[in-house]
Amino acid sequence: MGLMTAQEYLESLHDGRIVYYLGEKIENVAQDPNLGVCARTMALDYEIAEDPKYKDLATVYDEELGETISRYYHKPQNGEELIKAHDLIVTSTNLGDGIIPFSHDIGSDALNAYSITAQAIGNPEYIQRVENYRTYLKQKDLATCAAVTDVKGDRMLRPSHPGQAHPDQYLRVVEKNDKGIIVRGAKMHITGAAYSNEILVLPCRAMTEKDVDYAVAFAIPANTPGLTQICRPFKSKVSSLEFPNTRQHFIHTDSLIVFDDVLVPWERVFMCGEWEHAATMVYNFALLHRRTGVAYRIPMSEQLAGVAMAMAEYNGVSQAPHVREKLTDLLVYLETLRSLSRSACLDFVMRGGMAVPNPVVTNIAKYHFASKYHDMVKIIQDLAGGALVTSPTYKDFQVPEIKSYIEKYMIPKNGISGEQRMRMMDLIRRILPAENETICLHGEGSPMAERMTIFLEGRRTLAQCMKLVETQAQVG
Amino acid sequence: MGLMTAQEYLESLHDGRIVYYLGEKIENVAQDPNLGVCARTMALDYEIAEDPKYKDLATVYDEELGETISRYYHKPQNGEELIKAHDLIVTSTNLGDGIIPFSHDIGSDALNAYSITAQAIGNPEYIQRVENYRTYLKQKDLATCAAVTDVKGDRMLRPSHPGQAHPDQYLRVVEKNDKGIIVRGAKMHITGAAYSNEILVLPCRAMTEKDVDYAVAFAIPANTPGLTQICRPFKSKVSSLEFPNTRQHFIHTDSLIVFDDVLVPWERVFMCGEWEHAATMVYNFALLHRRTGVAYRIPMSEQLAGVAMAMAEYNGVSQAPHVREKLTDLLVYLETLRSLSRSACLDFVMRGGMAVPNPVVTNIAKYHFASKYHDMVKIIQDLAGGALVTSPTYKDFQVPEIKSYIEKYMIPKNGISGEQRMRMMDLIRRILPAENETICLHGEGSPMAERMTIFLEGRRTLAQCMKLVETQAQVG
Amino acid sequence: MGLMTAQEYLESLHDGRIVYYLGEKIENVAQDPNLGVCARTMALDYEIAEDPKYKDLATVYDEELGETISRYYHKPQNGEELIKAHDLIVTSTNLGDGIIPFSHDIGSDALNAYSITAQAIGNPEYIQRVENYRTYLKQKDLATCAAVTDVKGDRMLRPSHPGQAHPDQYLRVVEKNDKGIIVRGAKMHITGAAYSNEILVLPCRAMTEKDVDYAVAFAIPANTPGLTQICRPFKSKVSSLEFPNTRQHFIHTDSLIVFDDVLVPWERVFMCGEWEHAATMVYNFALLHRRTGVAYRIPMSEQLAGVAMAMAEYNGVSQAPHVREKLTDLLVYLETLRSLSRSACLDFVMRGGMAVPNPVVTNIAKYHFASKYHDMVKIIQDLAGGALVTSPTYKDFQVPEIKSYIEKYMIPKNGISGEQRMRMMDLIRRILPAENETICLHGEGSPMAERMTIFLEGRRTLAQCMKLVETQAQVG
Amino acid sequence: MGLMTAQEYLESLHDGRIVYYLGEKIENVAQDPNLGVCARTMALDYEIAEDPKYKDLATVYDEELGETISRYYHKPQNGEELIKAHDLIVTSTNLGDGIIPFSHDIGSDALNAYSITAQAIGNPEYIQRVENYRTYLKQKDLATCAAVTDVKGDRMLRPSHPGQAHPDQYLRVVEKNDKGIIVRGAKMHITGAAYSNEILVLPCRAMTEKDVDYAVAFAIPANTPGLTQICRPFKSKVSSLEFPNTRQHFIHTDSLIVFDDVLVPWERVFMCGEWEHAATMVYNFALLHRRTGVAYRIPMSEQLAGVAMAMAEYNGVSQAPHVREKLTDLLVYLETLRSLSRSACLDFVMRGGMAVPNPVVTNIAKYHFASKYHDMVKIIQDLAGGALVTSPTYKDFQVPEIKSYIEKYMIPKNGISGEQRMRMMDLIRRILPAENETICLHGEGSPMAERMTIFLEGRRTLAQCMKLVETQAQVG
Repeated sequence: MGLMTAQEYLESLHDGRIVYYLGEKIENVAQDPNLGVCARTMALDYEIAEDPKYKDLATVYDEELGETISRYYHKPQNGEELIKAHDLIVTSTNLGDGIIPFSHDIGSDALNAYSITAQAIGNPEYIQRVENYRTYLKQKDLATCAAVTDVKGDRMLRPSHPGQAHPDQYLRVVEKNDKGIIVRGAKMHITGAAYSNEILVLPCRAMTEKDVDYAVAFAIPANTPGLTQICRPFKSKVSSLEFPNTRQHFIHTDSLIVFDDVLVPWERVFMCGEWEHAATMVYNFALLHRRTGVAYRIPMSEQLAGVAMAMAEYNGVSQAPHVREKLTDLLVYLETLRSLSRSACLDFVMRGGMAVPNPVVTNIAKYHFASKYHDMVKIIQDLAGGALVTSPTYKDFQVPEIKSYIEKYMIPKNGISGEQRMRMMDLIRRILPAENETICLHGEGSPMAERMTIFLEGRRTLAQCMKLVETQAQVG
Repeated sequence: MGLMTAQEYLESLHDGRIVYYLGEKIENVAQDPNLGVCARTMALDYEIAEDPKYKDLATVYDEELGETISRYYHKPQNGEELIKAHDLIVTSTNLGDGIIPFSHDIGSDALNAYSITAQAIGNPEYIQRVENYRTYLKQKDLATCAAVTDVKGDRMLRPSHPGQAHPDQYLRVVEKNDKGIIVRGAKMHITGAAYSNEILVLPCRAMTEKDVDYAVAFAIPANTPGLTQICRPFKSKVSSLEFPNTRQHFIHTDSLIVFDDVLVPWERVFMCGEWEHAATMVYNFALLHRRTGVAYRIPMSEQLAGVAMAMAEYNGVSQAPHVREKLTDLLVYLETLRSLSRSACLDFVMRGGMAVPNPVVTNIAKYHFASKYHDMVKIIQDLAGGALVTSPTYKDFQVPEIKSYIEKYMIPKNGISGEQRMRMMDLIRRILPAENETICLHGEGSPMAERMTIFLEGRRTLAQCMKLVETQAQVG
Repeated sequence: MGLMTAQEYLESLHDGRIVYYLGEKIENVAQDPNLGVCARTMALDYEIAEDPKYKDLATVYDEELGETISRYYHKPQNGEELIKAHDLIVTSTNLGDGIIPFSHDIGSDALNAYSITAQAIGNPEYIQRVENYRTYLKQKDLATCAAVTDVKGDRMLRPSHPGQAHPDQYLRVVEKNDKGIIVRGAKMHITGAAYSNEILVLPCRAMTEKDVDYAVAFAIPANTPGLTQICRPFKSKVSSLEFPNTRQHFIHTDSLIVFDDVLVPWERVFMCGEWEHAATMVYNFALLHRRTGVAYRIPMSEQLAGVAMAMAEYNGVSQAPHVREKLTDLLVYLETLRSLSRSACLDFVMRGGMAVPNPVVTNIAKYHFASKYHDMVKIIQDLAGGALVTSPTYKDFQVPEIKSYIEKYMIPKNGISGEQRMRMMDLIRRILPAENETICLHGEGSPMAERMTIFLEGRRTLAQCMKLVETQAQVG
Repeated sequence: MGLMTAQEYLESLHDGRIVYYLGEKIENVAQDPNLGVCARTMALDYEIAEDPKYKDLATVYDEELGETISRYYHKPQNGEELIKAHDLIVTSTNLGDGIIPFSHDIGSDALNAYSITAQAIGNPEYIQRVENYRTYLKQKDLATCAAVTDVKGDRMLRPSHPGQAHPDQYLRVVEKNDKGIIVRGAKMHITGAAYSNEILVLPCRAMTEKDVDYAVAFAIPANTPGLTQICRPFKSKVSSLEFPNTRQHFIHTDSLIVFDDVLVPWERVFMCGEWEHAATMVYNFALLHRRTGVAYRIPMSEQLAGVAMAMAEYNGVSQAPHVREKLTDLLVYLETLRSLSRSACLDFVMRGGMAVPNPVVTNIAKYHFASKYHDMVKIIQDLAGGALVTSPTYKDFQVPEIKSYIEKYMIPKNGISGEQRMRMMDLIRRILPAENETICLHGEGSPMAERMTIFLEGRRTLAQCMKLVETQAQVG
């Protein structure tokens, strides 16, 4: 028992799970030329935990179990521990060239949401089940993910609304029996599910009494019968148009997971019908998950600042006034994110016996990076210039007749070669595809979701401020 | 003589020109599976001119020549004619599913800049050469493009600055002889050059006396010896991940054109050493070209509004307050562009004997669509939701085992099928790749270029306004 | 009969009307040291009509009546006439140092809304009454204003809602008899009412059947019994802290008009119970009135550009890159407004037999200037520097001991005296009080009102755009 | 010795200082009906220090001196102490109804800048003088202010540039003798100078060798011969148009201070000719002073949130979607400020033996509140509605004939009286005059000044980020 090795993790994925990629069923995701890249991205977390350099950050000693466990499965007790978890995310994302490995992050966000909700429900059975499951994860060090977002159908209608095209737009319990519950439905955007060990499922919205069958949360292995995953396309290596790059390629994919009458044993059921608490669970998951997002966006934002600075330097314009203004905007973006992200940890609140990041600040931080991301992308595209699109490619570079033209004419200034510039533009195109904009907006919840949370969490502040000015105005 | 047919145009491209695409030399661009798609995009303009429905818009009767010619090669004389040319661009872009055919647009912008500059220089020889060349283009109805942007090297240094890595960062005259001039250098981002008949070359910036060799403008056929074109990669058809689409595929590419000691006959030289007038030529080209950009962005912006509305409708949220706000933003974007674009024509100024669109308004219009484009993209990505990235693909759809899952779970609401929604997302991904953001910023000049022009052209207005308030303040 | 002179207008105001200013009842508004300044501002319109220089702009010859009348009371028939009316507003506002005289502008907006609505209702009686009233105004050339906004009470409740604190939150008909109707309620923000001859009243929102008593429109003289006006405070002259300024001082005030059971004769009633048409009337008034606002904001925006340029010049920084950027922003603001404003006229639509400005473009133009106004104010405050607040005053300047200090230390650069700079800052403070920000937002309707109109008027465009992309996506 | 009482402070101001207000010389500022209000605002700090409730926050026990001193004159040693100083500013500003008392804040910012610079210069004499002066201030608990900004003249020219209208645009040393130095020039925008005991003077910009005479820093009593202060106008009480308010009125004014050949004894001279260090002094002053600004803006921003919420509630619209959005914007503004402000303290750096707030974060925080302030003002004006301008006044309210009209028609909804609403609007107008916008921009340095500092301080971060992506791109 204890920590899993990267090798063990990769081997554990060959477990009969049903995963489709580009219309093909993948026998062994860890060995697949495409999905294997994702699995090795996730494996980075296990490598870090084995590395003496990061062990203190990545693991904690669990007094009760008497063994070293992943920091992710530990319940943080104070701001300092939140900051350490935060720094772990930042560090591992940096080691992943801007991609967070994700082996336990989202899973532990779901696990912690289970804990908080079980306490809120006050049902000792649920509390015990969650604790048992946490111990199981600590001891096995399993890779986990969270399945939250339902396919939803008509977004203005509730799960149980008869106007929905069918009753399975949200995952629901279709049967309960001695062994457990049988669920049907589908969850979307489930990052890392195809190469996780366990899938932690929870509702994605508040429910009403009519939605009682939809108020369901549970955890199951990824190879549970009835589960089918369909993965979204991704780039699993540097393209043939780009200069070769010998560094490990890091990338993730997301699954549409279909639950076709899947049996979940009772000991893994953490909510079943407590519709009043569906909101609590998803709300706390969202909070924790946004903190995760806020942290891993720091290294990603450093990339943005880096490529902007590189292009400004290569083109010789880093001192031009309007370029300085743009670089300053990137600094403000990055450093504001860093401050908010750390503030959210230091200004934590206690929930269900654990420290959770400040809800208002966390949501502001997520809203900050998501709502201003396109502006930062615009700056980089502005500084890189039209060559970002029209530049010759590595394919051209390999043709002797035109290589010399490229070397002569793509050179931006003395000391910077054309290849150097083209490699940097290759990187920019890799880190700034249009899909990343969508991911930045919707990952961890849409901007509107954050705004709504800020308003709900901030209402008390608004009321206090109103009281303050009423006193000053001598009103009432 | 007279108008060229689409067929004649396509055949004319098999002329020995040297064009590379993805590292391969293309024998016949019109027949090439990739570049042929671009050529057929350009051919659309010739089809329109043949179509009785659009003939009035696309052509004019030239009294002097006694024949019908392309409207593009006619010198507009008033606002009404500018509006017609504007409407021609809008119409042809609409017929190209958002892609302007570009057979004469940019070429005529360059041609008109030659005319205006020849008048400004006041050299009868240049004036005559330009008029002869215009007549030639009218009579042959040739496809033209404009080669303006040099590779530039260090952007803070002038063309002739010894700090440049080599003296050919800007195209220059290396020799003059009886037959003409010999030029060396390279031009970037030259849209349509690989499948145009003629390339109209002009400087891309103001020059000083030291840059005298770089002040050069001329026109040559695309198959002139010494010319090598390297085309940027593009999508020449719907990908295998997308639902099949039977409509014609429209797309363009841009060339890096290397001028390796190219001989240009004197009768095609329109500037050679008049460094004081380099600014006039590029400045007027930029003005005319931005008007072109402003016009074709109207149908493109209609696409943006359309896909946003479609996703809002499909997802059932078009009446949600925050969605209405976003749709309103798209309307403001589109209708402001339309108003500015038309105003620029109606509020025209005369230059070199022709009506040119209002410089301040044209630059504001281009700045408007470019500087706010990312915000519009953000709205669409926001409304489309994460499914824009994580949706299964047509590859998955073709697997019987999972097709039924897709049909069930991708259905957004009653009356809209999953396929319908996926097709719309396919379109969104086609029209919103990251490269289009860069093109929107840099096409026809960067946002900073427009701002500088607005300031320069608007200084007189600022001075008048200052005078006004000094009177009101009783100053001086 | 025919045009009224400025003198006749001023004398006409001594008619027994009940007007309060700062808690005092004003006997003769034209003679009052405060309200008289407003009246002379309004009189400017009559002076312009007498001035041969502006007669063509300010008046038209009415064929039917056989006399010259104010252009405002003429029904425009095409874009050209709309542009002339637009230019008249621009010109008179310029002559008023940025303050529109307002003698007929808003009144004619209301009158035209009556005409359009009478046509929509289709009641010949109303049509005739409106025509009679128009003829009366043409012949008498009376100063008119429009009373639209009710005091409203709880803004989420309808006029007739029992949750309102009292039933008179919106103006209503409390009795009908042989002579006419008796109305009760109060209208707010009525610019110029205290020194107009006639008050044109109309509803301020859409109504339901329950609101039938609130669907009422009519016109009455300002001295009608039962009317009480309470004017808002304003600066009627340059303050003693400012350098003396010998130019005429232009300013307006607004009234809260209380209708305390006011009798309106039937021939002046233009709506009484037609609740379905209340929206039509206010909607068209808003459209016309926003066009007025859009036009007079052009000279006001020229002032903004002017003071920014002046301060940049005086402080010697007009060539600093970030200052150029700010001045460019002002140019974009001004010239976009000008383009949109003229486009709205040229792209007119016909309603009720008259040309009205384009609804979408007009609302975008109003939204443009209102939503970006604060940014322009910020620029000016940024360029003027802290001295805008901390500068010594004219009171200090008159003390010999400190005048020399001021002259020495307030001098910004050679050629500009301290007095010159201080006078310019006096002007800035006069034209940029905080109240002008509120007026810019709410005058002619709040930004949200414009956005809602843009959405409603633009829905058809959105639907067309959606159809377009569905064709392109081969959907449905 | 020890802490001064509020009474002692007020009496100390009657010391022969020369202060002008509205053109009149003020004999005793503490007794003056206008300036006395400012003095009593400053006295609040002394009252707080006497109040057992705040003593821990407001004072520290100085081990060396063996007495309790103001926290402001203590050198902070760590983040915790910086947070305490921060909280002291927040608390006192709250007690001042949004106005910081300012008795030691800016003065101590200057004092600390002296300390840091003396260390940087490394001159033991300066180090000793500063320490002696600090001890003096600790023991006397004097009210201090900082005189930094020179009148500047042409802002593009250096102090010593012959193109300046005269050589005294920046304060300079005109003579040195046995007793000390004689200085001439004028400093602007000096908040609180008219009612401080001591004036701490420092340069406002970087200097070159030619500016050696302008590199001067020193501290002198406010009644030093040769000093003349001219105060800017301010509202010293609630106006007669507003409802009476019995709370203490808090307000400040700023002085233009003329130094007409003022003798400064050597022991109070902290820089004299060390032009290379002028930048260090002003730069560190700016940093510390911006931290002060960032802190006192928190209660001011709470006011903004409060009045917005109050108006939304009174008007019954706090649940309307677009109103919720606006309130959310205010929450984001406030809470981002709070987070950045605290982060700047916790992420401190050590300089000259004391903890100073993080330079990048402090500047981002100041830039945050200043650059978005106008947007927040716009929201409040939007929510308050046009009545903010057109509402009747307390003058009208006192007229029995119209009071009943006001009470009836100004009532916004059941449970909120018209008076309540009008009082809240009175408060809004008091806290949002246009001058506050300018103060928000320029107080503690203009937005451009913060941006430049962010860029300069952030260059190392940019370089690190660039290095990071070069590794990822395998460049170089």
